[in-house]
Amino acid sequence: MNVVKGRFIGVGVGPGDPELLTVKAWRLIQSADVLSFLTNERGDSQARSIAIDAIDAATSLPKEIPIYMPMLNERSLANKAYDKGAERIAKKLEKGLDVIFLCEGDPLFYGSFSYLLERLEDSFECQVVPGITSVNAAAATLVQPLTMLKESFAVINGRHSDEQILAALAQHDSLVIMKAGQARSRILTLLEQAGRTADAQYLEYIGRDNQQVVADVTELDLDHGPYFSLFVIAPHDHRQR
Amino acid sequence: MNVVKGRFIGVGVGPGDPELLTVKAWRLIQSADVLSFLTNERGDSQARSIAIDAIDAATSLPKEIPIYMPMLNERSLANKAYDKGAERIAKKLEKGLDVIFLCEGDPLFYGSFSYLLERLEDSFECQVVPGITSVNAAAATLVQPLTMLKESFAVINGRHSDEQILAALAQHDSLVIMKAGQARSRILTLLEQAGRTADAQYLEYIGRDNQQVVADVTELDLDHGPYFSLFVIAPHDHRQR
Repeated sequence: MNVVKGRFIGVGVGPGDPELLTVKAWRLIQSADVLSFLTNERGDSQARSIAIDAIDAATSLPKEIPIYMPMLNERSLANKAYDKGAERIAKKLEKGLDVIFLCEGDPLFYGSFSYLLERLEDSFECQVVPGITSVNAAAATLVQPLTMLKESFAVINGRHSDEQILAALAQHDSLVIMKAGQARSRILTLLEQAGRTADAQYLEYIGRDNQQVVADVTELDLDHGPYFSLFVIAPHDHRQR
Repeated sequence: MNVVKGRFIGVGVGPGDPELLTVKAWRLIQSADVLSFLTNERGDSQARSIAIDAIDAATSLPKEIPIYMPMLNERSLANKAYDKGAERIAKKLEKGLDVIFLCEGDPLFYGSFSYLLERLEDSFECQVVPGITSVNAAAATLVQPLTMLKESFAVINGRHSDEQILAALAQHDSLVIMKAGQARSRILTLLEQAGRTADAQYLEYIGRDNQQVVADVTELDLDHGPYFSLFVIAPHDHRQR
């Protein structure tokens, strides 16, 4: 007998506020056969905790595939974790069960989902439900337009070189610098060099209980910030541009 | 007697699929005192129609402030429409009523909300509920990662100059070109010049009944497309980068 294979579905749960799940994400999570998500060494999953209300609202408890992801810069360890995770997910898909993979933010925007997708997309039907990114949540928190009319907008991250960051600061009206934590003091120096310190604001843990907003980035200490942190650089008065 | 002024709240309703409203957007729309939105010359509102299920689920019908927006490139007419709209909204806010302004996509990302915000933010408390952008919805439709690891990502639009578009195509791994309709044939030429035709895909009316996806952009006619259209340019195989 041929079993119809299950679908691998990446579902964005947004940046942290449980109310920023979409109606579609809520529906799929609530009726899921199998849920998968990344966890840290303590077994905690940020994505799962954002979706907990939807999970608790399910009539029957879903099976879970937690994937432990070491938080190191060592890519080979991360790749091994994705290999192992993809194998466990594939087993459920082969049995005809859909697997919902929960992602913070949007699954295809700096999302861990992309690494599982590339391992599974040749063998299984894959789908995505988009989620609110931390970029849009940051702008909402600041009530600060990202782009208007002819403006351009770029997203870069703290892993880019000084040259790349300076070029982007010069060329784009508005920018977001993601994963800014480790590079925070370097970014502050580059903002100063580019003359864009006054355009910059800094946020940590957007939409969570420990959210921090620093409107004047000259007040920031010149040391590391957490992983979930970003800079929003946008002209203060769009009107006059 | 002092009346506490109402709040002006921009609510993103996402790119078209009614299920891509967030739980928070649904809750606010359902309990709204006053809803506002842009309309075309026939009185139709795309944003209102995306939210219609939430509006219909309300226990008491909200008041509505439709703002007619002429679809011309004449900025002075648009500014007049925003002036008039902001005045009507301000009257409700002065009476202590909250006004929910419905926006396609995200209110602060190429959103009409920004133009009302700059007219009202000095006098009233303003808030934003972020929405799914057409950028993230396009990636989800294509099941195509936008950014991974060290990649950079930019959003430009069809109003940018040839030089700006070519520079962005050279510098960023992934790009989205918004509002591509009017500039479609020009963009196709620039993609060819930049050697990125094979990386490009084209989408119209994402998430709506008339959605179109063109995976091979050489099949596109060299003429105009609709306003709601975009190009996604991303490396086909992120893994090998």
